[in-house]
Amino acid sequence: MDKIGSYTFKQYCDKVAESHGKLAPGMVIGGYMVGLAYQNLPPNTLFEVICETAACLPDAVQLLTPCSVGNQRIRIIDVGRFAMTFYDKYTKEGVRVYLDLGKLEKWPVIKEWFLKLKPKKQQDTESIIKQITEAGIDICGISALKVFPEFTTKRSKTSIAICPICKEAYRSSDGAICLACKGGLLPYLVESKNETMAS
Amino acid sequence: MDKIGSYTFKQYCDKVAESHGKLAPGMVIGGYMVGLAYQNLPPNTLFEVICETAACLPDAVQLLTPCSVGNQRIRIIDVGRFAMTFYDKYTKEGVRVYLDLGKLEKWPVIKEWFLKLKPKKQQDTESIIKQITEAGIDICGISALKVFPEFTTKRSKTSIAICPICKEAYRSSDGAICLACKGGLLPYLVESKNETMAS
Repeated sequence: MDKIGSYTFKQYCDKVAESHGKLAPGMVIGGYMVGLAYQNLPPNTLFEVICETAACLPDAVQLLTPCSVGNQRIRIIDVGRFAMTFYDKYTKEGVRVYLDLGKLEKWPVIKEWFLKLKPKKQQDTESIIKQITEAGIDICGISALKVFPEFTTKRSKTSIAICPICKEAYRSSDGAICLACKGGLLPYLVESKNETMAS
Repeated sequence: MDKIGSYTFKQYCDKVAESHGKLAPGMVIGGYMVGLAYQNLPPNTLFEVICETAACLPDAVQLLTPCSVGNQRIRIIDVGRFAMTFYDKYTKEGVRVYLDLGKLEKWPVIKEWFLKLKPKKQQDTESIIKQITEAGIDICGISALKVFPEFTTKRSKTSIAICPICKEAYRSSDGAICLACKGGLLPYLVESKNETMAS
């Protein structure tokens, strides 16, 4: 597989280094997965994407498509599976591309890495990536699917309320106080509201 | 505010167009917020980021820092508040930057946009962005905080299991079957596993 999207492999690696940091094996498979999903949508489809893990895949999608997390054409629903769904925003028809374990027997180095059969320190990233580029989409599966009609990657924010507790703006559809003040979601404790910090 | 991170305003706009699509007002505020948060960390801090909304902010962070969603140095906890936390990965000390409603009285166009006081069609994006560039970090608040010691933006995946239902790999810590097969999380219905699709 010499090309990833419209990039040469080298160009893709440079782009990954810029946006993701190092060239992780997951970014290489992710690139092939994006290509496979994209090819299986009708031309000119306005699509949205669901990633089933936060690891690597959202960055591959952001690098190769107009979808980003912040423009809300990607939603991450982190169930920990290495899979992505591309679907038509209007018809909701799409495809799910995943790494197919049944196809990994032929690719022992990829299998060892993906299933963490060996400690990370004993694995050689270069060999893993080499095998991934040989395998390309041969290790992927693809399914046709339909996304539920009411789902969209973008959370609608039809009206805004001001939370009586934190005094910040939030989606009024979340209820009488914001989700943060309902508790249990945010992992921090505010120490001081300090207006004199560097600014 | 002529600079956003190390970019001129014009350079930042070009970068936004490339990664996010159009120059949304939230991307401009987001840029200033990143700058303010970053300035308030000790130099050379290895930091991670929590975004309290998926809208715009994750893209601003991705554009201006080495953190990305896919390298898991950003975690989105979408409680719908326009806020981001930068914290030291090791000490867990950090700062939360937010849009401070109390400071919006001086900036009526920003207030109208942020609180959706006017229908979108009656708002003029150019005027909103102009006022945001005038306001810069004047509309932001900042708090010192400490992230809980056990929290990290990266979900640990110490060992992998194969789900007996979907036959895909998942984090074994999620239990005997994967979160997807437990149900209720993913918004689609698979129609066919089709190996004969374009590839």
